[in-house]
Amino acid sequence: MKAWDGRFEKGTEPLMERFSASIGVDWVLFPYDIKGSIAYAEMLFKIGIVNQREKNLLITALKEIRNELEMGRLPFSDALEDIHMHIEARLIEKVGELGKKLHTGRSRNDQVAVDMRMFLKEALEQIDGGLKQLLAALLGKAGTEQRTMMPGYTHTQRAQVVTFSHYLLAYFYMFKRDRQRVKEAFTRIDALPLGSGALAGSTIPIDREFLKERLGFSKITENSMDAVSDRDFLLDALFSLSMIMMHLSRLSEDLILFSTEEFGFVSLPDGLCTGSSLMPHKKNPDAVELIRGKAARTLGDLTSLFALLKGLPLTYNRDLQEDKEPVFHAVTTTHSCLAIMTLVIEGLAVRRERMKEAVVASFMPAVEMAEYLVLKDVPFREAHQIVGKMVKYCEEQKKRLVELTLEEMRRFCAVFDDDVRSYIDPGHILKSRKTIGGASYKEVAREIAREQKYLRH
Amino acid sequence: MKAWDGRFEKGTEPLMERFSASIGVDWVLFPYDIKGSIAYAEMLFKIGIVNQREKNLLITALKEIRNELEMGRLPFSDALEDIHMHIEARLIEKVGELGKKLHTGRSRNDQVAVDMRMFLKEALEQIDGGLKQLLAALLGKAGTEQRTMMPGYTHTQRAQVVTFSHYLLAYFYMFKRDRQRVKEAFTRIDALPLGSGALAGSTIPIDREFLKERLGFSKITENSMDAVSDRDFLLDALFSLSMIMMHLSRLSEDLILFSTEEFGFVSLPDGLCTGSSLMPHKKNPDAVELIRGKAARTLGDLTSLFALLKGLPLTYNRDLQEDKEPVFHAVTTTHSCLAIMTLVIEGLAVRRERMKEAVVASFMPAVEMAEYLVLKDVPFREAHQIVGKMVKYCEEQKKRLVELTLEEMRRFCAVFDDDVRSYIDPGHILKSRKTIGGASYKEVAREIAREQKYLRH
Amino acid sequence: MKAWDGRFEKGTEPLMERFSASIGVDWVLFPYDIKGSIAYAEMLFKIGIVNQREKNLLITALKEIRNELEMGRLPFSDALEDIHMHIEARLIEKVGELGKKLHTGRSRNDQVAVDMRMFLKEALEQIDGGLKQLLAALLGKAGTEQRTMMPGYTHTQRAQVVTFSHYLLAYFYMFKRDRQRVKEAFTRIDALPLGSGALAGSTIPIDREFLKERLGFSKITENSMDAVSDRDFLLDALFSLSMIMMHLSRLSEDLILFSTEEFGFVSLPDGLCTGSSLMPHKKNPDAVELIRGKAARTLGDLTSLFALLKGLPLTYNRDLQEDKEPVFHAVTTTHSCLAIMTLVIEGLAVRRERMKEAVVASFMPAVEMAEYLVLKDVPFREAHQIVGKMVKYCEEQKKRLVELTLEEMRRFCAVFDDDVRSYIDPGHILKSRKTIGGASYKEVAREIAREQKYLRH
Amino acid sequence: MKAWDGRFEKGTEPLMERFSASIGVDWVLFPYDIKGSIAYAEMLFKIGIVNQREKNLLITALKEIRNELEMGRLPFSDALEDIHMHIEARLIEKVGELGKKLHTGRSRNDQVAVDMRMFLKEALEQIDGGLKQLLAALLGKAGTEQRTMMPGYTHTQRAQVVTFSHYLLAYFYMFKRDRQRVKEAFTRIDALPLGSGALAGSTIPIDREFLKERLGFSKITENSMDAVSDRDFLLDALFSLSMIMMHLSRLSEDLILFSTEEFGFVSLPDGLCTGSSLMPHKKNPDAVELIRGKAARTLGDLTSLFALLKGLPLTYNRDLQEDKEPVFHAVTTTHSCLAIMTLVIEGLAVRRERMKEAVVASFMPAVEMAEYLVLKDVPFREAHQIVGKMVKYCEEQKKRLVELTLEEMRRFCAVFDDDVRSYIDPGHILKSRKTIGGASYKEVAREIAREQKYLRH
Repeated sequence: MKAWDGRFEKGTEPLMERFSASIGVDWVLFPYDIKGSIAYAEMLFKIGIVNQREKNLLITALKEIRNELEMGRLPFSDALEDIHMHIEARLIEKVGELGKKLHTGRSRNDQVAVDMRMFLKEALEQIDGGLKQLLAALLGKAGTEQRTMMPGYTHTQRAQVVTFSHYLLAYFYMFKRDRQRVKEAFTRIDALPLGSGALAGSTIPIDREFLKERLGFSKITENSMDAVSDRDFLLDALFSLSMIMMHLSRLSEDLILFSTEEFGFVSLPDGLCTGSSLMPHKKNPDAVELIRGKAARTLGDLTSLFALLKGLPLTYNRDLQEDKEPVFHAVTTTHSCLAIMTLVIEGLAVRRERMKEAVVASFMPAVEMAEYLVLKDVPFREAHQIVGKMVKYCEEQKKRLVELTLEEMRRFCAVFDDDVRSYIDPGHILKSRKTIGGASYKEVAREIAREQKYLRH
Repeated sequence: MKAWDGRFEKGTEPLMERFSASIGVDWVLFPYDIKGSIAYAEMLFKIGIVNQREKNLLITALKEIRNELEMGRLPFSDALEDIHMHIEARLIEKVGELGKKLHTGRSRNDQVAVDMRMFLKEALEQIDGGLKQLLAALLGKAGTEQRTMMPGYTHTQRAQVVTFSHYLLAYFYMFKRDRQRVKEAFTRIDALPLGSGALAGSTIPIDREFLKERLGFSKITENSMDAVSDRDFLLDALFSLSMIMMHLSRLSEDLILFSTEEFGFVSLPDGLCTGSSLMPHKKNPDAVELIRGKAARTLGDLTSLFALLKGLPLTYNRDLQEDKEPVFHAVTTTHSCLAIMTLVIEGLAVRRERMKEAVVASFMPAVEMAEYLVLKDVPFREAHQIVGKMVKYCEEQKKRLVELTLEEMRRFCAVFDDDVRSYIDPGHILKSRKTIGGASYKEVAREIAREQKYLRH
Repeated sequence: MKAWDGRFEKGTEPLMERFSASIGVDWVLFPYDIKGSIAYAEMLFKIGIVNQREKNLLITALKEIRNELEMGRLPFSDALEDIHMHIEARLIEKVGELGKKLHTGRSRNDQVAVDMRMFLKEALEQIDGGLKQLLAALLGKAGTEQRTMMPGYTHTQRAQVVTFSHYLLAYFYMFKRDRQRVKEAFTRIDALPLGSGALAGSTIPIDREFLKERLGFSKITENSMDAVSDRDFLLDALFSLSMIMMHLSRLSEDLILFSTEEFGFVSLPDGLCTGSSLMPHKKNPDAVELIRGKAARTLGDLTSLFALLKGLPLTYNRDLQEDKEPVFHAVTTTHSCLAIMTLVIEGLAVRRERMKEAVVASFMPAVEMAEYLVLKDVPFREAHQIVGKMVKYCEEQKKRLVELTLEEMRRFCAVFDDDVRSYIDPGHILKSRKTIGGASYKEVAREIAREQKYLRH
Repeated sequence: MKAWDGRFEKGTEPLMERFSASIGVDWVLFPYDIKGSIAYAEMLFKIGIVNQREKNLLITALKEIRNELEMGRLPFSDALEDIHMHIEARLIEKVGELGKKLHTGRSRNDQVAVDMRMFLKEALEQIDGGLKQLLAALLGKAGTEQRTMMPGYTHTQRAQVVTFSHYLLAYFYMFKRDRQRVKEAFTRIDALPLGSGALAGSTIPIDREFLKERLGFSKITENSMDAVSDRDFLLDALFSLSMIMMHLSRLSEDLILFSTEEFGFVSLPDGLCTGSSLMPHKKNPDAVELIRGKAARTLGDLTSLFALLKGLPLTYNRDLQEDKEPVFHAVTTTHSCLAIMTLVIEGLAVRRERMKEAVVASFMPAVEMAEYLVLKDVPFREAHQIVGKMVKYCEEQKKRLVELTLEEMRRFCAVFDDDVRSYIDPGHILKSRKTIGGASYKEVAREIAREQKYLRH
């Protein structure tokens, strides 16, 4: 049985059957398809297309089929194309002619659209849950590392002293923005397309408001042609997932660097690393490397779907079948990467002494040294030049800035005084930064307190 | 003069100067850079770093420089790298040492971030204006074509009768959603990063709240490391622009089809077509072909920026300089494509008779014929099979469905009666569709009325 | 058992085990992994690491394991990570300690590289076979349609008369170029990386030349660090596959257009179309729509892999595990799309009369009319203007060019004579085109003859 | 004047003129366009369309126009659309009616195709030159660093001792493969499309063989419809450029790591670094960061063009105008990145002592320690476990492997003897590796000698 072979002379080519079948991919939609069909049966009863007994028969049978699918007891066949036809065929086996009535006024075009929307609403809720857990892990770690000083980097070069806590908060705010994106995507997904038919609606008075309520949507789509060809909501979802993955890839890159022997700032938990089959001494940061790599894949998913939709005429075209794998892949990938990164952050061993050594050994206080001069009325650009020359001198003398004598300093600028030494002490710097959101003990503490509240409600 | 050459032994390689200079691209940021610097000078006065006279000197000079830039009288040089250094160098020429003070507590890292955000806020407002005009054009045309029946397509095959008005509304709703995306992007862009310094904030008490007010931002960024390395807001913008372009490409594809001799549904205005240098009879839909093509380019912009950011460690890295061209390109492209499409829609000649012929010649009423049977209690799937066979019969007999005699019809199903003829009349169908958002005269009229209100406020 | 847990304190997190396992994807490499291991055992015997008896035991056991894998009798477990470890673990179960010797001097880094290369060499040979069959189908159809005139299109507007045969040959040459690309990719893939160890080669005298011969490679890789981190050969393959898919997508687009009711030039075989679950009259070109859609997916595969490799430091990184799915997907997709398109072309019903009608009804002979004037010494650009005006006149008068009286013609240009009528007759045009590769009966016949020879050898 | 306005009622919309004009981009094609037109004039003379005097007039005028364009004395106007029309219009100004004859049998479709092919042939030759210079720089540096030992990395973790020379050769082989790709692209580009007309060839006997010779092509395209819509050769070029950029991005990433204070292996020349406007001590690896970033852009170019061509019907469509910017951008970018990277490699200061320290401090000899056991008949997997445990022991005891007493070693495995110490000495390892292409002094020397020969011829 095909859903449509009335006008056809010849059956489908066997190769074509395999080629065009989507059951291997779209079977995961079955809970949504069953749920949608049950609501549809209730609606058909409400508008008088089926009677009470018929409605009950349909619903009972649909529930049985759901059970069979959950148990893996309904065999899949390419001849039945997709999950919708598998369920309908089984329904007809169970309730006979009545099963055929369920498709009244409904097309696979609006059916698959509503299934995907229901699937994605649930998926994004789970993603949001994953984001929340990662945020909690980051904030937790930021809480315990408030006094851990480390070099902040620009161009992967030591730039200015910050705290590891401040560093972690940078990611906190990225993932916090991601929750907003996920929510916006959710809002656009949350519109019921069912009742749009193949593309034009129906002469049968399908009650879309009823369906909306029953299926937990907050609004209905406004134009039937748009409703069946719209895949924007998939792109909304894919974009928000790609952003999460991009953020995770940046954090991964940092952790890969920080856990090299050369940096030595952190140590990833054994349970998230692997060794080498050849090199007995290796402990590799596989978890975060995989996350970094997977971010490339979700970008591929996003690119695929955009290229798929570009230049596609209205309304439904079979090309749209190819929308599912990228979306399912991105959802699964992002979800597991969030969970793994949460474990990474929770289990991260912070090597505070290594971070501190890196701070002390560096020329980073140069910025504050220039700011010291500014407060003594040297124009900033001139102060910058002066300190630049002092750095060059130190390199030649193999000295740190703090090791210069006052006399040496004054050779570069007369206004230096003894108080400069405490001014460029890293601990002092972290106490004296004054800008909102800056790398200072006080600001970080304030932010942590505020974000703990955010996570609680 | 470089902003940073204090500690360097040797000057920059000439080839490197050309390679790394961004002035050829980022000069368009000058109005924002000047505006930001003026606000910064005011803030430095407020916190006591410059006095009133100095502040006034700085502001006067900055305004002069803006004027010079507007007139094209400030020559650009690769040696001065970017727009920020061009402006600063000129400032020092004008006010001497004082000019160097303006950079106090400010880095090019937070400076370029605030410039790009100011630029994009303005750009997205213009894009939103373009969307609004296109929406008005679509709604206007939808208003005049409410009774223009046409085939609705799935799989580029005639599917069901709709109106051209209903068809146009499908796009109306796409672009309406785009406005929402643009707004969401705007909201995330609308946060002031200035005052984050190079990455860590400052020991100088930069007044970020003051800057926020002066520069018209609605909030400030929360973490200095995030603030200088964050390019998410560019991706937000690029995504919303790519979606608009994807929608425009679909509409373009449709118009290319509809304006073929074979379809002949519409005729594009001469002023938006071109001819052929070889073929005297050609009138080509260049405007919409170009739009379709440009949608591929904005996808490339989006892919570029994602690939750029993937795996980039914190915080600022010079790679980020490459963020500008894709963003500037996508903004300009989308803006002009919206304007052109608005002209296309406004000037579109609708060939109503051709559309109607296509409706009448087709087997499209088959759906309603099946629905007729359903209302006479034939299960839908069976009705579908019956009508499928009737279509095959008609093809063999070279008849249209409406031309079958009642006797012929009854050979397929006994329940047919004379009323079927009016039931499958296209005009009747467009009157009798009952679902919300469906292709019926009534629904379309209702939607037009509602959306006119939406556009007015 | 892990291949590497000697130095680890704690076991792998269960979630991490699932996250990092690749057995669900890379199991398809088993025939290559076994083959590689057999050759490796022989080589270890040759250099004296194992004796004859040990070699035989290893080979017998490996063949048994292959058999178990073919029968699906070796259960997979995430704890064993990948196909290499599954085979090694099973080998140790069978032959004990001896099994551990097989990894001497070998790393999973060079092992997976050689497996992928063997896999791809076979895959590309199959792709090439698929290309050859499609070329045969195109050439066969081109042979039977040599006298079928049709409009050639630019801008999807009728441009000049061509033959369907000439049109099909355009695609023939695209796919012929694809064979060249596939061959070039093959040549670069065809280099043995085995013997490169983890990244540095080995102090054990692995005989790479022997392995090369045994595994059928034509050369060996030249640098061990490059060999284990190189994935360029995957990009070579993906690029050639993406090109094939892009060509298939263009052909699909054409066939979708040509099989609309509006064009009506071809009819796709029933067995490659599907109907609608709602609309009984529909016959949709699903096969070619799916191909068009799948071309977007292979582009996503290519983008993924490029983004994965961009900025990856030397040598092997775990990110590289994510290279497999895109490659496997693209291979499978391209292979099946080639097979389906071959069926499409073979089964294509060409509606010659519809094509001819379209030719006759159009203004296409305008080009030749201008060329007629050129041969009578009117400068081309002027001739173009003249004929352009005649076309406009015809449109107003609702006449075709050929229907103009000589008198009417001479109103536009005095040099017209009676011979113009035959000069612009489509059949005459197809006889009189003179350029190599042009749309003339003669050129097409010559090309077909030549390409038949190409396909034969 | 438009090339095609004969049949048009109304002129072009001013906005449309700006929108569709490509002169701002395609003017760089002028030398090729002029060259092509000169050859075309000669051909028209050969086949008798113009006489000797006319030919000479045309050629003289075309050369004058080239001169004007080189001097920047021909103003550009959007009304004249593209470079072809600018040149033609100017030609007519100069030679009157005769100028119009030059377009006989030629269309902008085949004209732009031949221009782009001529442009790309030259561009790829320059790219190949850039590759050769980079190869020479890499090989030169590899020559002087043959005894510089360094850690080889997998997973960015120290893995095995290699030499810096061996490391550089890994990139040498990547760029060597790139030359092959560039050559293959060149070969496919090197086919003359001119004479294909708009899509169908011509009734005028255009002598394509003559044009092929005159314009230095090695073959002619075989099918006129393919010839005008084919942009595969651009993708061939873009792919080869994207591969080069991907390789450059990997090398950049390594150099960014190696020049951190933490690694400290290399120091980039001052002239290729920049400082910070805020931080006086900074020396940033801008050159290589920019290269890494630009690799994302060329990927965007490739994605754009694929997405542009996907699903485009035959033959020429105006979308194709958008092919130019990505190609021009990728050519320019790759060319300059190759030049900059050559300077980077040539000027690289290698800090040999830092590399050696990193080697000596690490557990890297663990592999060779296991190989030592293998040669004493311990099965490899067991040897791996033994050494793994020794590494863990060393970590606890804060010892290096070489510092273990023989007694300690024998606690892990009885077969250890005093010779193990020399066996795991890095210098010894680099002498004793035996595999072809492995990291040994001997292999590296052999490779350098061979590749010096390759570069010479």
